[in-house]
Amino acid sequence: MEQAAYERLRRFFSPRGVAVVGASAKNQWFGNLAGYGRRYGATGQFFPVNPRAAEVAGIRALPSIEHLPEGDVDFAVVMVKSDAVLASVEKLLHKGIRNILLISSGFAETGAEGEVKQERLKRFCRENDILLMGPNCLGFMNFSDRVNVFAGGSVEGELRPGSIGLVGQSGASSEIIASKLMKKSLGISLYTTTGNEAVITSEDCMDYLVHDSRTRVITGFMEGFRNIGRMKEIAREAALRQIPIILLKVGRSERGMHAARSHTGALAGNDAVTDAFFRQYGIVRVESIEELVETASVFTHCPLPRGGRLGICTLSGGLCGLYADLCSRCGIEVPRLSERTVTALKTVLPDFAQPDNPLDVTGSGFLQGMGEILKILLDDENLDMIATLSFAPAGDGDTLMHRFNEGLFPVARSADKPVVALSFREVTDYARRYYEKNGIYFIEHPQDSFKALSHLIHYAKFQRGLADGRFEQTGASYAR
Amino acid sequence: MEQAAYERLRRFFSPRGVAVVGASAKNQWFGNLAGYGRRYGATGQFFPVNPRAAEVAGIRALPSIEHLPEGDVDFAVVMVKSDAVLASVEKLLHKGIRNILLISSGFAETGAEGEVKQERLKRFCRENDILLMGPNCLGFMNFSDRVNVFAGGSVEGELRPGSIGLVGQSGASSEIIASKLMKKSLGISLYTTTGNEAVITSEDCMDYLVHDSRTRVITGFMEGFRNIGRMKEIAREAALRQIPIILLKVGRSERGMHAARSHTGALAGNDAVTDAFFRQYGIVRVESIEELVETASVFTHCPLPRGGRLGICTLSGGLCGLYADLCSRCGIEVPRLSERTVTALKTVLPDFAQPDNPLDVTGSGFLQGMGEILKILLDDENLDMIATLSFAPAGDGDTLMHRFNEGLFPVARSADKPVVALSFREVTDYARRYYEKNGIYFIEHPQDSFKALSHLIHYAKFQRGLADGRFEQTGASYAR
Repeated sequence: MEQAAYERLRRFFSPRGVAVVGASAKNQWFGNLAGYGRRYGATGQFFPVNPRAAEVAGIRALPSIEHLPEGDVDFAVVMVKSDAVLASVEKLLHKGIRNILLISSGFAETGAEGEVKQERLKRFCRENDILLMGPNCLGFMNFSDRVNVFAGGSVEGELRPGSIGLVGQSGASSEIIASKLMKKSLGISLYTTTGNEAVITSEDCMDYLVHDSRTRVITGFMEGFRNIGRMKEIAREAALRQIPIILLKVGRSERGMHAARSHTGALAGNDAVTDAFFRQYGIVRVESIEELVETASVFTHCPLPRGGRLGICTLSGGLCGLYADLCSRCGIEVPRLSERTVTALKTVLPDFAQPDNPLDVTGSGFLQGMGEILKILLDDENLDMIATLSFAPAGDGDTLMHRFNEGLFPVARSADKPVVALSFREVTDYARRYYEKNGIYFIEHPQDSFKALSHLIHYAKFQRGLADGRFEQTGASYAR
Repeated sequence: MEQAAYERLRRFFSPRGVAVVGASAKNQWFGNLAGYGRRYGATGQFFPVNPRAAEVAGIRALPSIEHLPEGDVDFAVVMVKSDAVLASVEKLLHKGIRNILLISSGFAETGAEGEVKQERLKRFCRENDILLMGPNCLGFMNFSDRVNVFAGGSVEGELRPGSIGLVGQSGASSEIIASKLMKKSLGISLYTTTGNEAVITSEDCMDYLVHDSRTRVITGFMEGFRNIGRMKEIAREAALRQIPIILLKVGRSERGMHAARSHTGALAGNDAVTDAFFRQYGIVRVESIEELVETASVFTHCPLPRGGRLGICTLSGGLCGLYADLCSRCGIEVPRLSERTVTALKTVLPDFAQPDNPLDVTGSGFLQGMGEILKILLDDENLDMIATLSFAPAGDGDTLMHRFNEGLFPVARSADKPVVALSFREVTDYARRYYEKNGIYFIEHPQDSFKALSHLIHYAKFQRGLADGRFEQTGASYAR
């Protein structure tokens, strides 16, 4: 992406004054826009435009676009009926406003007539250097710059800035992803939806995120690509910058592909080709929203492992068997411990404990402190990463649990191998915030998490190939 | 199971007076026993036996087994050191107490010496008609009869009586299962752990649950079977009574099998043989604790479907694609809607909605009420079950969400096809209780839930084969 194109998008994603054409109390859009802004203390001023209202949601309204104050408005959200959209865009252009979010539906997603309408709009934007997001689109939340022009109604939880970028071709699906990221106490850099992508495409947004210095992990909900060649370039650049791209690409099944095609009109494409392309370019493909969120969290917290051999530590023989089975299904190796490790573990575990991998520290083995056990496992040259027993505290008063973890976390944080917490007990919102505050990835749904760890392992392998200059040949070694 | 054997176990599982030999404030066992009892208002009196304490956890202690009151005590929990166990059991026998839970460890799980100890104990019990649970065991919670002799420390949540039976060969793993059942607001009939199974085995417990009229679904965490022939008989009887058995059997992987073998000493067996046996006898095999809980919930709430064709209804094209893909991975068919259904849906949906399966009712299509849409889908002869859009309310004040669901639930409950709620928005504890109170299975983790639905479909097929008298030949048709 050229510097000028990046700067143009950067300005698009950080407006100061936002006209809202068609703002009304009759629908939820303007209320949502203003509400999210308040929820995370966004800067930026709204100027509702409505010829039939003196104010909307407590904000003074202007009767027409012509009445917008000169110089204060650098962005417009348009939510008028589809037939009135082009005229509004023309008037905005006349006021010098070239950054537009088009929320209105009634374009390509509705059939042939709407397609013609969208094509006309697209041509007008292209001819007049207008950047337009949408139509049929919810907008974006720019956490990095504390600006909000998001009009959806379903993002829940505490809104937090952070290093995860999120691009959603589907509004509702990406709202679920954003909510689940918040639920895990993870922070977002930019969350943007793209709707029908008449002008700004998902590729544009991902390209922007690759170059945005605040984003360390890119996630996306995709129905199809507009430009595979462009996407390859983006993935190549992301790989060189070590920014993983994690995509939930629907359309694996015949019915799923059919649904994706009829939704945003994006070409769902041949799924096997998508798989091959993803593998070659190191794009991580996930199968569910939950797997996406866990994978983003793992990548945010863990260094890349040197190999794929996992040491597991828990407090029950039954769980040892269960975790070993789940790892095996995800292609994660659970090797034997070295002789030296077995000998060392015997000195810190009860007599009847039999050191093995997975390691059952027994119901009392953790009482001496988990830090020592973790250190011994980290020293094992057979292991590239550790999932260690930890206790999810239910609140500040849960002192015993806090004490167990306090012996563990400093060792985990100073390790050069990934260490994740295998949390025993139900994980509460308190525990989610607690692990996040301590910078530790925690497992609460083992199957999703082991899949996420397997993605980390594969991506690390992909990056090692890259370091060896084998970009185009990585396909085979990245097989899942 | 013969009536006498059932009656013997029924008495075992519903003691009135419980001696606790070795009760002490020095470990958590007695505190846990008494604590759980209080938490769900269990009946039954505890008599701690400790020569060196006047009281334990606020309950007056007796100096010896000999001091136990005549006639009031019909059960004993033993938690003395393993070397002192046999002597205690002998004394208890002398007092006429033949029902014993042995919590102490230090038996077969510790090696050759412990095995000898366990063998001697087992012989003594057999020769003297003593029913013994354990050793190395946490005991049971009998919700149906409101009795508790469970000594574990990790079962969380509100303890509720219900129709799900749970047998755990692994204490810690089954405590997680019990906690997650509670978290889903599901109720339990009997939750029992089995430990080393010197006398009472998992097979005994499952056999009991099959004959217990309060249990409608049996679940279990298994490391291995003691007696496959017996298990087949139990599964046959359960199938005839339409009580599904849902088992998480570890040991699929080499490491998992190794862990299972070294834990309880149960024979993990050849996994392919286990699969074949499960398929033939209609035992549902799940791969994770989360899948087990969802599957138990589906079986508790849904009638058996006539086939495997699912209609899906949501409010976003992106989610349509995602759900179709996930169903395809689970082998659930998502067929086209009939012409008649498409025509009928067009009368209740916005003009721009395109009726299809999965059905995107669009962001406004549900505003007219979901009940009508659900009725139309239920009438489609191409569909055997429906996953319908629903809104998880966050609290009593969430009136809009309540109103949406209120139009839906009566239609769902009166349907002869399974109807499950595909809940949009994050599911809170409030929502879990709400769906449970309304008797509706709800999806909060789509991948786990679609797997659970596929188990329901397969089990229904197994039962249809049974009705046709094809018990022994069902293997092929039950393939996953």
